[in-house]
Amino acid sequence: MARAGRRPGSTTTREEILRAARTLFAARGYDATSIRAIAAAAEVNPALVHHFFGTKDEVFIAALDVPINPGETIANVLDGPRSEVGERLVRTFLGTWGDPLRRASLVAILRSVTTNEQAAALFRQFLSAAVFGRISDALNVPRLQLMAAVGQLMGIALMRYVLQIEPLASATDDEVVALVGPTIQRYIDSPQC
Amino acid sequence: MARAGRRPGSTTTREEILRAARTLFAARGYDATSIRAIAAAAEVNPALVHHFFGTKDEVFIAALDVPINPGETIANVLDGPRSEVGERLVRTFLGTWGDPLRRASLVAILRSVTTNEQAAALFRQFLSAAVFGRISDALNVPRLQLMAAVGQLMGIALMRYVLQIEPLASATDDEVVALVGPTIQRYIDSPQC
Repeated sequence: MARAGRRPGSTTTREEILRAARTLFAARGYDATSIRAIAAAAEVNPALVHHFFGTKDEVFIAALDVPINPGETIANVLDGPRSEVGERLVRTFLGTWGDPLRRASLVAILRSVTTNEQAAALFRQFLSAAVFGRISDALNVPRLQLMAAVGQLMGIALMRYVLQIEPLASATDDEVVALVGPTIQRYIDSPQC
Repeated sequence: MARAGRRPGSTTTREEILRAARTLFAARGYDATSIRAIAAAAEVNPALVHHFFGTKDEVFIAALDVPINPGETIANVLDGPRSEVGERLVRTFLGTWGDPLRRASLVAILRSVTTNEQAAALFRQFLSAAVFGRISDALNVPRLQLMAAVGQLMGIALMRYVLQIEPLASATDDEVVALVGPTIQRYIDSPQC
């Protein structure tokens, strides 16, 4: 494809930036990947990466095609009494999975991470840096306990939305909150580990 | 392929039985599928199905390619004080995932259920009938709580073995038992829901 014919706003350039970002994030990890390195790998000016995506975080989310903005979502979950973080986290999580379009993206991610090591590396970075790091810093919860909490949510999503096993598939969001909210809260509160 | 040339012990016949079993289990469910119906669909004698696989349960496990025998595994988990079922369940689960060959099969199942509706239906049947039904009957635990417990384990497996996120990926089995064993036990003990 001729380089001269492209415009800064073309889909091809955007896709090339995302491809470079996926390769670098998967190979080096989130922290060691800069916008400058992504721009260099895609052979574009760093300003163009900013123009398309904004921050490194946003390049990362676009590269991974995650249907949520973790910064925003986590801010919502943290906004309110600490004693209700468990409940808010479950509700937010169910809200995301309950939306058919977002659910399709999440199932696609689940499929990718079980099929492709690069996708697994990307998603590992995403969860470590953008999710676990932020929440565990904000709430001062040991990383292992936070992972147990998120694992509880992932397993519920797998059975409720992907496998659609009853009675969990037909339970209301309120019932699921009552079922696993206390577990999540316990992992957040517990001082051990 | 000429039917006359086949022997009862041939791979082809075994594969045809499994293919028929997959179709029927996925379409009708575990309970409504008989060995006789599988034999009829595969155009073989029911005795041949018994010869290859034994019980309906064993046809089912072979059709799904699950690397565990649920009856045996559950019997082991239930064998001992009820107050330690949580711990035994976590240990048994980690033991299965810790084995590289079994892990590969489990990841393959996870990939199938996110890709293919028939595989999802089969696995749904497997979990409902062979896992949740048995444990919830044996321990008299409400189905929804049992699903939360199994969801906790599945999410841990996803992060520890598939995504390999730290510090969970490098934690010892004992640490994981200490982390999630009490959660599992609570779901088994709790009288609510």
